[in-house]
Amino acid sequence: MKREIRVFAPATVANVACGFDILGFAIDQPGDEVIVRLIDKPGVYIVKISGDQGRLPLAAEKNTVSVSILALLKHLKSNQGFEIELMKRMPLGSGLGSSAASTVAGVFAANILLGNPLAKEELLPFATEGERIACGSAHADNAAPALLGGFVLIRSYQPLDVIQIATPKDLYCTVLHPQIEIRTEDARKILKKSILIKDAITQWGNIAGLIAGLMKSDYDLIRRSLQDVIIEPIRSILIPGFHEVKQAALASGALGCSISGSGPSLFALSSTREVASKAGDAMQAVMNSLNIASEIYISKINPVGPRILEN
Amino acid sequence: MKREIRVFAPATVANVACGFDILGFAIDQPGDEVIVRLIDKPGVYIVKISGDQGRLPLAAEKNTVSVSILALLKHLKSNQGFEIELMKRMPLGSGLGSSAASTVAGVFAANILLGNPLAKEELLPFATEGERIACGSAHADNAAPALLGGFVLIRSYQPLDVIQIATPKDLYCTVLHPQIEIRTEDARKILKKSILIKDAITQWGNIAGLIAGLMKSDYDLIRRSLQDVIIEPIRSILIPGFHEVKQAALASGALGCSISGSGPSLFALSSTREVASKAGDAMQAVMNSLNIASEIYISKINPVGPRILEN
Repeated sequence: MKREIRVFAPATVANVACGFDILGFAIDQPGDEVIVRLIDKPGVYIVKISGDQGRLPLAAEKNTVSVSILALLKHLKSNQGFEIELMKRMPLGSGLGSSAASTVAGVFAANILLGNPLAKEELLPFATEGERIACGSAHADNAAPALLGGFVLIRSYQPLDVIQIATPKDLYCTVLHPQIEIRTEDARKILKKSILIKDAITQWGNIAGLIAGLMKSDYDLIRRSLQDVIIEPIRSILIPGFHEVKQAALASGALGCSISGSGPSLFALSSTREVASKAGDAMQAVMNSLNIASEIYISKINPVGPRILEN
Repeated sequence: MKREIRVFAPATVANVACGFDILGFAIDQPGDEVIVRLIDKPGVYIVKISGDQGRLPLAAEKNTVSVSILALLKHLKSNQGFEIELMKRMPLGSGLGSSAASTVAGVFAANILLGNPLAKEELLPFATEGERIACGSAHADNAAPALLGGFVLIRSYQPLDVIQIATPKDLYCTVLHPQIEIRTEDARKILKKSILIKDAITQWGNIAGLIAGLMKSDYDLIRRSLQDVIIEPIRSILIPGFHEVKQAALASGALGCSISGSGPSLFALSSTREVASKAGDAMQAVMNSLNIASEIYISKINPVGPRILEN
């Protein structure tokens, strides 16, 4: 049996315009990596973190990765000990599900080293335990797609009801990460507790259209449905140049463009890699003109979630 | 070329629990019938209406059927004249899309007699013109499924964006029509203009789940998704025995039960005809115990919309 494993888990885009709090998808780039190692004493130890500029806690009870592995061990009534090395390969606080990627990679790796006592989809509750530490609530709209790949609908949290939605074959994601920071907590705080029912109707028409468009591989329906009349108008205030970036993506031929998670990253979806790439250039040009440094990631939708890397 | 045609168009269930204002489906029973006849003078004349207890207007500019045919003729720049006989075969004001059924039957028949200048789906704007006369606004959540059959999503009204959603093979509808009357206008008036965002999130999770469940033929997902936390809690106040009827349907094994359109009819969906029938008996027993007369209709989802009847 293997004593050590290296696993990649992908970044994720939550909310997806009209799917606030219920929809997310996984992308191929960026993502985080972990090395998880069986040890002969009990306990879970984070022995090394790189790429976080010293911002993430090493203490096992505070780090999302160890918290989720500890939850898994508790469920399995196992005393197995683990050492973890965590390699952050994407910016923290970017709205790309950075904590979910690490957590999913960790719990997926630990389950394999334990001899696969649980099926992959059964690991979600432990990954969301990690998210509780990171965000204050057990959200699953990043963890579920990071674990399962593709588009994932979280229909309900109580009980947790997670549904995989078929992904059209030719769907490419452009992510723009401007190097500014938005705290998830602040992004939540500015939202209104009440909304107009007429806006809610528009939103549920669009999420229904988006689900149908994805399942039918109807790119034009996806385009028509990728609209958010409730969250984006408020949260976009926190992102300098938001409307220009979005306009640049749409003018390049992208199907839609909105905020990834609670921002500051923006995502666009396109039906060819060429358009996704052209949109990326145009989006970044707007940030350049504002003298805001940024990264661009272009990738297909990640269909599988975490994967084992060769050491 | 035929000079006269007799057409049936189906009743429809709008809103479908979590799909307020954006979703409807057609059923096989009940439905309305029209006879439409070419005449040699211009103008559209309602020559006979039966089954309406004298409540519907004969004047061409006030009757939904003639209004929609007039809109069609105007669009086609045609002076062809028509006579119409209208046979109401379902209760008016029942929440089953009675005006939409007549209107769709009429405009579908007229288009055939004119030599099919338009495809069936192109007739929708004219049918919704009829709905404007009946309801005060050009709603399409009854007219679209009555015309197209099956489940139909109306993603947007401006512009009108209508999407057919695949219907699972084994899906049966039970309709209970209690003989009480609710005016659509009143049912609209009691709704709140604002709703809590947390309820809206629940609702759009459920509509997303329902669309996915229908398209995957996942009956259990349909069951979990057929919930309305926004409209039903308010409108159910207008329907005596609502909660008992719903409970009776669910206890019989129905996948879900809610208000059809703005009521007073209730619908339940089931995955076998036996359950649909058992649910119908149980639902009607509740109305009987309240001394409210009622009708029950059991049918499959209507997959095609209007159909030509032999004379």
